[in-house]
Amino acid sequence: MARMEKLDRRNFLMAGTLGAALPVTAKAQDFLTPAMTTPAEPGAPYGVPAPSEANVQRLATPLAQVSAGTASSRTPLHKLDGIITPSGLHYERHHAGVPQIDPAKHRLLLHGLVKKPLEFSVESLLRYPRVSRLAFLECGGNSGGNAAASPPQTSVDLIHGLISCSEWTGVPLKLLFDEAGILPDAQWLVAEGGDAASMARSLPFKAVYQHGLLALFQNGERLRPEQGYPMRLFMPGWEGNLNIKWLQRLKLVKEPAFTREETSKYTQLLRDGSARQFDFIMPVKSVILMPSVGMQIKPGYLEITGLAWSGHGTIRHVEVTVDGGKHWQRATLTEPLLPQCMTRFRLEWAWDGTPVLLQSRAVDDAGNEQPSHAEWRARFAPGQGYHYNAIQSWQVDVNGQVRNIHA
Amino acid sequence: MARMEKLDRRNFLMAGTLGAALPVTAKAQDFLTPAMTTPAEPGAPYGVPAPSEANVQRLATPLAQVSAGTASSRTPLHKLDGIITPSGLHYERHHAGVPQIDPAKHRLLLHGLVKKPLEFSVESLLRYPRVSRLAFLECGGNSGGNAAASPPQTSVDLIHGLISCSEWTGVPLKLLFDEAGILPDAQWLVAEGGDAASMARSLPFKAVYQHGLLALFQNGERLRPEQGYPMRLFMPGWEGNLNIKWLQRLKLVKEPAFTREETSKYTQLLRDGSARQFDFIMPVKSVILMPSVGMQIKPGYLEITGLAWSGHGTIRHVEVTVDGGKHWQRATLTEPLLPQCMTRFRLEWAWDGTPVLLQSRAVDDAGNEQPSHAEWRARFAPGQGYHYNAIQSWQVDVNGQVRNIHA
Repeated sequence: MARMEKLDRRNFLMAGTLGAALPVTAKAQDFLTPAMTTPAEPGAPYGVPAPSEANVQRLATPLAQVSAGTASSRTPLHKLDGIITPSGLHYERHHAGVPQIDPAKHRLLLHGLVKKPLEFSVESLLRYPRVSRLAFLECGGNSGGNAAASPPQTSVDLIHGLISCSEWTGVPLKLLFDEAGILPDAQWLVAEGGDAASMARSLPFKAVYQHGLLALFQNGERLRPEQGYPMRLFMPGWEGNLNIKWLQRLKLVKEPAFTREETSKYTQLLRDGSARQFDFIMPVKSVILMPSVGMQIKPGYLEITGLAWSGHGTIRHVEVTVDGGKHWQRATLTEPLLPQCMTRFRLEWAWDGTPVLLQSRAVDDAGNEQPSHAEWRARFAPGQGYHYNAIQSWQVDVNGQVRNIHA
Repeated sequence: MARMEKLDRRNFLMAGTLGAALPVTAKAQDFLTPAMTTPAEPGAPYGVPAPSEANVQRLATPLAQVSAGTASSRTPLHKLDGIITPSGLHYERHHAGVPQIDPAKHRLLLHGLVKKPLEFSVESLLRYPRVSRLAFLECGGNSGGNAAASPPQTSVDLIHGLISCSEWTGVPLKLLFDEAGILPDAQWLVAEGGDAASMARSLPFKAVYQHGLLALFQNGERLRPEQGYPMRLFMPGWEGNLNIKWLQRLKLVKEPAFTREETSKYTQLLRDGSARQFDFIMPVKSVILMPSVGMQIKPGYLEITGLAWSGHGTIRHVEVTVDGGKHWQRATLTEPLLPQCMTRFRLEWAWDGTPVLLQSRAVDDAGNEQPSHAEWRARFAPGQGYHYNAIQSWQVDVNGQVRNIHA
């Protein structure tokens, strides 16, 4: 059995398990490196990561067999720390590639059940008031590989990397709706993107009026092409696919449109044969990223750390077990704790070299909890993986090898 | 006189000043763009901004006449929104260029008045517990151009762009100090970087023990080369130059080292001929970015927005005047409000086409306020521009042209 003691850092230090310092071997002249003796070049007008970090990339999965141009790429969560995802590493999911849009020509049409249809250019939208918020965006299919009977033994980003977190800034859609004047029958909104997938989804109008953002900026700068440049719909905590990229039409309607993407996809088949359609909000989830599947750890001090999030609200707490659920401990959550935002959790730990089973479980402020894998499987039909949020189990063997198991 | 009414958005809409929508001219077929008819390519493993945004760059100012390789580049604050600075646009200031460091060979030495000197590799440091926080970093010389009798008429980034805001993640230095064991005489810490400037600064040990971070990650990913890859010292709210990049030695000493950078530079000459040395904390400041110097605005609705920050704590409020100080209104601050972090402020406004004088003034939770330009000038010697934090005044003329004035 692995020890799991609530050691403070002083204890870790005294036990010699935290101190990872090396014996001092360097001489004074070792610090007079070549870099210290020759003035170097300045940075570029737009900087890039260090060449030594070239392996920190998003992992692309072409899905060409499904349809031309459809693909996804995943955020390397286990190589990052904090909560912000650099925009260059934000996950992608598109159904017909990334269109190159000329922002000077792009138009957004607001029409349907409105008193006065309106048209907007990017320039005209930039004259409206804006708001900013830190929020995650998660694909409806994220973590779905774990729904299989045999859990995937890939790196963690290939399982859980269809989620990222950014500061999103844009115009509250409420302002545009008020300007157009909404007719009483307008209960749904159909949002349509300008890509070759003609991506379109139906959303309940009331929720979009309350929470919807016409996002123009991401992490300070204008949206990236992969994220819908020049504009996208943003609904904090809602299934990624609903956050229509390259947004060009918003139509107020009485009934949902039952578009291809809300019938052939993004609908959850239940165990009893019925389907759950229009399930918008991404459920509470947590994943330990260090250590995680595919890694090999060494005995001694190791900080257990990962991310938790919930589309329903703010993470209230995250508990971690290192003995397969016999004992659970509350992890430290990094402030600020924000609704529909990634939350970083950390727990001090020392691995004693014996086999351990690591799990985390998050609870949000609406009281939502993560099911076990078995509980999740009992609800949904085989092959269904949307909105998978069961507790993730990592098995560490005597060699420190971390495997993905269903426990 | 410009009107400055506390209009709510409904009033703006009814007055027709907010609605910037265009008349609807598009026909249905206009939305069947070429991008909608041809599947496109997926994104790259590490994404970049849209080609149309190529003018959003940091503005470099080579200072080769001072010494080889010394340069600065500035964040284009007025082209961004929210509080996060994308790492590619983080301001730079270096005194001998950006050294290319091999992280596998890099070592950090902790020595001097310690019981046991310690040496760390990047790999060994990554085994320590980490913490994350959102915080600004500001060059001691930021805004210094405004200290001149004649205010510069450049774009705002060339005046105030030596500040950026990131999520910083790293090891609390307290842990390394505790492991080494600090001797009683250790009152100061000399931090030294591995660049050709041999950048070194003295910091009071107690403060570094309490607040210092050995930063390894910035905005989720590993530090950028311009920000000290593979590691830097980070002291939230302290003068940028003290946050030693490419950190390779930390020496505990009894007295400050009086290095070149804390004698020839980064010391403030006062009006009475004395000098203020070891003034570490960046004072409270605010800048309206939209509109700002060099822009030309049009009559109608315009959101006044900018950034405020204080090294002493959290921004408590920001007031804005559009009539040169006769009336002040509280701007809306975007939550979360965090210590030593950028704070975005916004105020609804409609410009009526008459000349106006715009100013903002921030107050932090320690009660610190911004001085007027005249008050600031009365304290410091001519030519001294470090830690300049006077209220910024923008004069808008009848043509909508925005000029930088001392008011």
